[in-house]
Amino acid sequence: MDNSLNSVTEQAAALAQSGTTSSELVEKALDQFRSSQHLNAFVALNEKAVRRQAEQSDERRKKGRGLSPVDGIPIAVKDNYWTLDHPTTACSGAVPKIPEGQDATIVRNLREAGAVIFGKTNMHEWAYGATNTGSSIGPTRHPLDPNHITGGSSGGSALAVADGVVGAALGSDTGGSVRIPSAACGIVGYKPSYGRASRYGVLPLSWSLDAPGLLTRDVKDLLLLAPYLLGADPQDPSTFSARRFDPESTARGKKVLALTGPYLERRADVEDVIQGARERLGRDFDWNTVQMETMEPYFAAWEAILHSEASSYHQHLLQEKPDGFGDVTIAHLVAGNQLSAVEYLHAQKIRQQFMGILTVLFEKADILALPTLPVTAPGQDEVWQEFDGRRVTTQDSMTWFCWMGNLAGLPSITVPAGLAENGFPVGLMMMAKPGEDEYLLQTALQVQTVLQQSVVSEFA
Amino acid sequence: MDNSLNSVTEQAAALAQSGTTSSELVEKALDQFRSSQHLNAFVALNEKAVRRQAEQSDERRKKGRGLSPVDGIPIAVKDNYWTLDHPTTACSGAVPKIPEGQDATIVRNLREAGAVIFGKTNMHEWAYGATNTGSSIGPTRHPLDPNHITGGSSGGSALAVADGVVGAALGSDTGGSVRIPSAACGIVGYKPSYGRASRYGVLPLSWSLDAPGLLTRDVKDLLLLAPYLLGADPQDPSTFSARRFDPESTARGKKVLALTGPYLERRADVEDVIQGARERLGRDFDWNTVQMETMEPYFAAWEAILHSEASSYHQHLLQEKPDGFGDVTIAHLVAGNQLSAVEYLHAQKIRQQFMGILTVLFEKADILALPTLPVTAPGQDEVWQEFDGRRVTTQDSMTWFCWMGNLAGLPSITVPAGLAENGFPVGLMMMAKPGEDEYLLQTALQVQTVLQQSVVSEFA
Repeated sequence: MDNSLNSVTEQAAALAQSGTTSSELVEKALDQFRSSQHLNAFVALNEKAVRRQAEQSDERRKKGRGLSPVDGIPIAVKDNYWTLDHPTTACSGAVPKIPEGQDATIVRNLREAGAVIFGKTNMHEWAYGATNTGSSIGPTRHPLDPNHITGGSSGGSALAVADGVVGAALGSDTGGSVRIPSAACGIVGYKPSYGRASRYGVLPLSWSLDAPGLLTRDVKDLLLLAPYLLGADPQDPSTFSARRFDPESTARGKKVLALTGPYLERRADVEDVIQGARERLGRDFDWNTVQMETMEPYFAAWEAILHSEASSYHQHLLQEKPDGFGDVTIAHLVAGNQLSAVEYLHAQKIRQQFMGILTVLFEKADILALPTLPVTAPGQDEVWQEFDGRRVTTQDSMTWFCWMGNLAGLPSITVPAGLAENGFPVGLMMMAKPGEDEYLLQTALQVQTVLQQSVVSEFA
Repeated sequence: MDNSLNSVTEQAAALAQSGTTSSELVEKALDQFRSSQHLNAFVALNEKAVRRQAEQSDERRKKGRGLSPVDGIPIAVKDNYWTLDHPTTACSGAVPKIPEGQDATIVRNLREAGAVIFGKTNMHEWAYGATNTGSSIGPTRHPLDPNHITGGSSGGSALAVADGVVGAALGSDTGGSVRIPSAACGIVGYKPSYGRASRYGVLPLSWSLDAPGLLTRDVKDLLLLAPYLLGADPQDPSTFSARRFDPESTARGKKVLALTGPYLERRADVEDVIQGARERLGRDFDWNTVQMETMEPYFAAWEAILHSEASSYHQHLLQEKPDGFGDVTIAHLVAGNQLSAVEYLHAQKIRQQFMGILTVLFEKADILALPTLPVTAPGQDEVWQEFDGRRVTTQDSMTWFCWMGNLAGLPSITVPAGLAENGFPVGLMMMAKPGEDEYLLQTALQVQTVLQQSVVSEFA
């Protein structure tokens, strides 16, 4: 990978100082796109539209009329967002025709800021899976080893960033779909608080769990892009009381609580990396561990809500185009149809109990911490994962910790914590109270700074 | 009926001027209670506790330490509210043991204001029915003719007020249970906006539809009591953003929209009374009629949500004490268990569509108006009602218009509009936008004033 000008922050600085042009950034991105096509990050890329956007940006900047710090920066978009210049398929053969012609709210926000909308990324069909192996155009492949998965469902977005095509990509996250591939590929992934970012124009999976999100190489990039992500949108009722991103907000609180216990197991090599990060962060953070009772009922509640809402959303499509869905997706949808209203409502009650548990935890801590994944990026053909006495499907291993942030609507982020013995990246996940996105991002920036410095000093 | 000092407003004025005592009011209420026991308004009445509260109130007032304008005023409570001095049974043989010892939040608010909690009123079992014929202690009986029903499920509360035992009673309303018996018995009934009044300590029927409510003889009584009903309660999460009652709020807007169309039919004699009221109100209000498309899908959505949530709530009790429930309640609960999660979620989507329709209507009007019931109080044994070409169960006829206020969370009120040709009362229902409770109550007061004056002038 070519690491020059790869982060959004670096690109923005270079553009501001006329050290590069949007067209140069875009040509470099197109080169990288072509050289990494075997990894299968993109499902659609309208080169003409991309180049035109870059030229228009360069025109603006030449006249001193740049629209924002991100004017001219290429950003990739997951294929479940509507886009003006690309069709939307959610990487499913069953998708209804969604032609180009309209932007999702977040895409429009970025476009109005001058960002170059750089193609649509590969994803797990309908975002209904966390491995990214179930896609109409085939799986995404890990940049370190194509025989390993990237994780998903925003696998193409993670890959496009990790592989240096773009500095940022949009994703969506219902049980970890932004954070999972970010952690597996060694980049940063951020899921905002539920209801703080518009889902208008993003195909739903499970509307009470879904959040849009951003994948970048650096937490600083998130701080630069968050203003286009957060805030109320009249077209998404869940955002009615959403605050805009507040750049003046200053981080406070240094209490981190790491969670362990049944249904929170992880592989020893992953835990070693987290413990190493904890030691390096120990000077700046007051870090404690809490032994939880089993997470099983809450994990099951998340699954019941996910399957009920997904089957509800896909009800008509399943009748009209049953052959368009992949086998596993069909199985999920049929199973979801068997859930009763009473079971769904029971799951929502369990969800309320989980909120109560979190309220108690957040009285003791500002941040809840976990590995983002209990394992490193699995092999493409691995069906099962084993860790610390637990044997679960690779699918379940991907969402093993991430579902919490969706069930409770917490802002959540993964930052690279280091490499496991096998050379694959491990992510550290941090979650804050609902609405505390600014605090989470600023804390993540401190964490990133410490961990990067310590990497430098280890190798110095 | 003895009409002297029957309204809360009259009682408050007399107490303030030392024209009566709480003990006198309570003895009068106990006399009336005894003389009307055949109507079956009460399920429990702890005379000793009632007298002691009155004596304590008189002590306070004697020392000039009255707690509030309602200190010393007897108020009856529906048997699904927890009460410090009476057990709670929801008039069901299946109720778990809920002994005296704790007040629901609203009961506590009233008690802290010095009100005398005057016994528990008869209700339809678990509030799961609108006729009040299904009660563990037998049906309530209409004060004009014991062979007619009062409507329900707050039938005992309506009867206690209409029959002059108390000036006010607490009820609950999931599809009209406050407004239905109020209209049928010729009194005033008020259901607040969803989430503006605490349900803590009120046994749930369907938590996304349930509201507590008040039944009185006069809209002025509601203005006096609303401060104890409305406002946030940490123990009911649905009230987190609830505003307190604002007595300074002044009514504005005079546009009334009367709704007609399929599934909004009513009997001709009922419509005659409403038209008469409309003529008398015509000088003060800009009154128009709108022809709606069928209400059938929205009525069905309300029913699906009601049955799903009720079956969810009663799931364990149905397994533990199946013999305790009445036959019809069992049938409802078993039917609710058959609804799928996808059906429930579909109903919630239909609910959102209904909200959209209301948004359009409220752009044209400040108040939506309907008869509260399509018929007058039916006979105890009538299973079917026929009106304007529609044949429905007596149960469905009771909720025919009222469900809208619950599905959409609107503040809703019924005020007496006059008597039908058969001599039974007809209520006028008015609904305002969510949160506009003050406006609704003040408008209802104007309506009441006009209708009362016109009654006086007709008979002058």
